[in-house]
Amino acid sequence: MVMYQNGMGARRLRELPADEALRLLAGVPFGRIVFTRHALPAIRPVNHVVVDGAIVIRSSPGTILSSHLSSYVEPVEAVVAYEADDLDGYERLGWSVIITGVARLVAEPGEAARLRDLLTPWVAGEMEQVIRIQPEIVTGFELVPVAVTA
Amino acid sequence: MVMYQNGMGARRLRELPADEALRLLAGVPFGRIVFTRHALPAIRPVNHVVVDGAIVIRSSPGTILSSHLSSYVEPVEAVVAYEADDLDGYERLGWSVIITGVARLVAEPGEAARLRDLLTPWVAGEMEQVIRIQPEIVTGFELVPVAVTA
Repeated sequence: MVMYQNGMGARRLRELPADEALRLLAGVPFGRIVFTRHALPAIRPVNHVVVDGAIVIRSSPGTILSSHLSSYVEPVEAVVAYEADDLDGYERLGWSVIITGVARLVAEPGEAARLRDLLTPWVAGEMEQVIRIQPEIVTGFELVPVAVTA
Repeated sequence: MVMYQNGMGARRLRELPADEALRLLAGVPFGRIVFTRHALPAIRPVNHVVVDGAIVIRSSPGTILSSHLSSYVEPVEAVVAYEADDLDGYERLGWSVIITGVARLVAEPGEAARLRDLLTPWVAGEMEQVIRIQPEIVTGFELVPVAVTA
C-alpha cells in the first residue's frame, strides 16, 4: 500500500522539463532578478512578460544595467539569474523555476516601445529601461509528497 | 479630494524600517538565498527560521558553502543576499525584504543540533548543513497605491 504524507510531511523535488518550466514562469506576473551590484549579490522582485522565449522586464537605469551603451562604468549586458515560483509555505507544495542567461538592454527605440506596450511597471516612474533576458540554462522543480510504503 | 487607484493602478514603494522588515521576514516560512556559484549568480528557495536576529537555513554541503572548514576549494563563509516576500501579483500589493550579510557554516555540534531541532527541511535527505546568515544590510519595501488628487 502506498500512502502520501500530507501536512508537514517530507517532500521530494521533481525536476521540471525546460519547456514546462518556461511555461510556468510565463504564467505568473512577476519574479526576481538576481544580479551583482558593487560586487555583492543582489535581488529585486520585478514584474515580467515572456516574449519570443525571452523574459522581458523593466528597470531603473543604473540598477541592473547601465543606461548608456557607451558606459565604461556599468555593464550594458550582464549574466543574471531570474527566479519565479508559486510555493505554498504551509502546505509545502508548489514549484520554482530558475533561469540563468544574459540580460541585455533593448536599445532599438521601436522594439523598446513595442515591449513597453506589453509591460507596464507596477511602480510609477523611473522604470524606463527595457531589459531582455535570453535564457541559457532553465531549471525548475516541483515539490511533491514523498510516497511512503506501509 | 484624495482617491486611491485600485486594481491595475500605479504603486509606489514605501520603505520599511529595518526592524519591521526583519519581523515580516521572520513571520513567513521561506525565502530565497542568493549566492555566487561557479562565478554565476545563483538563487534557491529555502525554508528558514530567525533565531537571535539571524536567519538560519539548511542546505546540502557544497551548494552554498563547503562542508569542510579546511576547504580550499569552496568557501566556508560567503556574502549572500536573502529575500522573502508576500506579493500579490494580481492586486500588485504586498512587501519584499532583502537582507545582505555573511553566511557561515554552524560548525559547533551542539549549536548545529539545537538549530536542526528548530528547522526541518522541506525536502527529504541531504540537507545536513546548518547555515547562519548574520544580517548586515536590511532593506524592505511595501507596495502602496499612489494617491491621486482629483
